[in-house]
Amino acid sequence: MNTSKRLIIRLSRYKNSLSRLKSLGFIKVFSDNIADAVGVTPSQVRKDFSIFGIPGNKRGGYLIDDLIRELKRILCKNNINNVVVVGCGNLGNALMKYERFIMEGIKIVAGFDNNDKKLNEKLSIPIYHLDKLQEYIKKNKIEIAIIAVPDSAALSVTDLLVSAGIKGLLNFSSLRLRGGEDTIIHNINLQTELESLVYFVNAAKKNRRQ
Amino acid sequence: MNTSKRLIIRLSRYKNSLSRLKSLGFIKVFSDNIADAVGVTPSQVRKDFSIFGIPGNKRGGYLIDDLIRELKRILCKNNINNVVVVGCGNLGNALMKYERFIMEGIKIVAGFDNNDKKLNEKLSIPIYHLDKLQEYIKKNKIEIAIIAVPDSAALSVTDLLVSAGIKGLLNFSSLRLRGGEDTIIHNINLQTELESLVYFVNAAKKNRRQ
Repeated sequence: MNTSKRLIIRLSRYKNSLSRLKSLGFIKVFSDNIADAVGVTPSQVRKDFSIFGIPGNKRGGYLIDDLIRELKRILCKNNINNVVVVGCGNLGNALMKYERFIMEGIKIVAGFDNNDKKLNEKLSIPIYHLDKLQEYIKKNKIEIAIIAVPDSAALSVTDLLVSAGIKGLLNFSSLRLRGGEDTIIHNINLQTELESLVYFVNAAKKNRRQ
Repeated sequence: MNTSKRLIIRLSRYKNSLSRLKSLGFIKVFSDNIADAVGVTPSQVRKDFSIFGIPGNKRGGYLIDDLIRELKRILCKNNINNVVVVGCGNLGNALMKYERFIMEGIKIVAGFDNNDKKLNEKLSIPIYHLDKLQEYIKKNKIEIAIIAVPDSAALSVTDLLVSAGIKGLLNFSSLRLRGGEDTIIHNINLQTELESLVYFVNAAKKNRRQ
């Protein structure tokens, strides 16, 4: 699962870098261009493409529109992907408004919180009370949720979501949640990312001093 | 570098889960407890500890306070770690107020933006114009920065930061930035994380149908 997660993340990066190259006026690209833009080797690009049956073309290059269409098809971008956000504090709110999700056809349809002050059903993305979470998910057949609640609430919210039918969770709490048979969970821990960066900066400083 | 980044991220997770266990009243823990909390094997925990000279103790367990102190020392948490945020839109603003950074001794000291409407030097974390970025970094000897600017500005902001002396960058733009000899860059691409989750959810759905 981990290796293939990395593969899919690379495909997503290829697609995004191709969109940028297209906006610069590119019509044809070579695996070297894509590799440079994403920071992998050209042979990795060709290997990844071949896994999904995109024919290799080392000399002639790829037509950028064909590639983007093909990558979007592989990444299921033709489906409608409605997502709810649970926990509408600073981070949850920022994620609800995150432009790059919208750009990629991912639609945040509602937020949920247990703080009455945050509730507002009249917003373009309404915020409902947590009490309505399960009903909303079932009624609207939502399959993907983003968790941005405090750690103390993360497990109970996950249980609520999974029992309502959520199949995929992007978890921003610092609890490392594990998916079940029918649930895929990606954990993003901003704190450990920044902590590990601090570690490497301090370690490099010590090395320079020695 | 990649393997050891994973190692340091595990150490950070150990420390965070130990803090949670401590708040539950734990005084002693076993490698099994830590492994369960973090989602790795007990032997991985002992192996990671032994790399940093924390003596293994399979039967007797560890005193939780000793372990937390030792992990904090390893993770350089005794240093002051001042951080600036560049780009104070929704995401940048949420990161400036992110409680879990503060909890871990990481201090966001200022934000920078090129939009005059966002500037406010009187906030508890002041927001200055991008023009003042280099001077501020040099004067306050800042070494770590978070980038939450639009993709189109990511490269120029990175150049500004690195030439001012920044050694570590946490990059939230979707451009995959590469560090130089003296600069460590961790990229967090929220869009590809959500996209890959969408992919796996849709792929699992197809499998169930077949």
